[in-house]
Amino acid sequence: MLAKGGCPKTMLSIRDALEALEGKWKLLILFALSEGAPKRFGEISKAVNGITDKTLSKELKSLEANKLIKREVYDTFPPMVEYTITPHGLSLEKVLDELHFWGLSHRKKVMGR
Amino acid sequence: MLAKGGCPKTMLSIRDALEALEGKWKLLILFALSEGAPKRFGEISKAVNGITDKTLSKELKSLEANKLIKREVYDTFPPMVEYTITPHGLSLEKVLDELHFWGLSHRKKVMGR
Repeated sequence: MLAKGGCPKTMLSIRDALEALEGKWKLLILFALSEGAPKRFGEISKAVNGITDKTLSKELKSLEANKLIKREVYDTFPPMVEYTITPHGLSLEKVLDELHFWGLSHRKKVMGR
Repeated sequence: MLAKGGCPKTMLSIRDALEALEGKWKLLILFALSEGAPKRFGEISKAVNGITDKTLSKELKSLEANKLIKREVYDTFPPMVEYTITPHGLSLEKVLDELHFWGLSHRKKVMGR
């Protein structure tokens, strides 16, 4: 692929992906949900170390708008809200895998540990 | 990989990767350089549609600090500066590939075209 580096059509789809996944939180939230089991706000917040409630709330809305997660409200008292990753969200598996492998090598190479 | 979704150690390396690649420009700049040939500031700016000079300048510094590109100054008059992708930068090939494929499917699925 990189042999065709810089191809404007390829750049367009990379740009689409980066816009949907922008920032350092969205992929981490998706990864936290990637077991498949629904999670509540507090559980996601605990899994994604360092995220504020305000940011998490904003990112969840953006992920829902991009059909990457589903939000469900249960008619209990008090009402319970759960978030689940969608099949489209799960289709990021290979992106997350490659980021994981690259992150490992980057830590060795640049961060020196 | 996603079967082990949420594993804290895996999340750490994804986080490392996302921190080095944060924002929507860095990967696009690397993609523009990924043919391998050195490029001047103006050439990169033209290839990465919509980036401002100020942002490009900041992003190039960050990419250099993370050893993803190399900056070379030639002793000409006026001095010429060129940027080249490093082997570490080229090791993002698979990440870019997967983002490209996912971006294509995201465009069909969510953006509906």
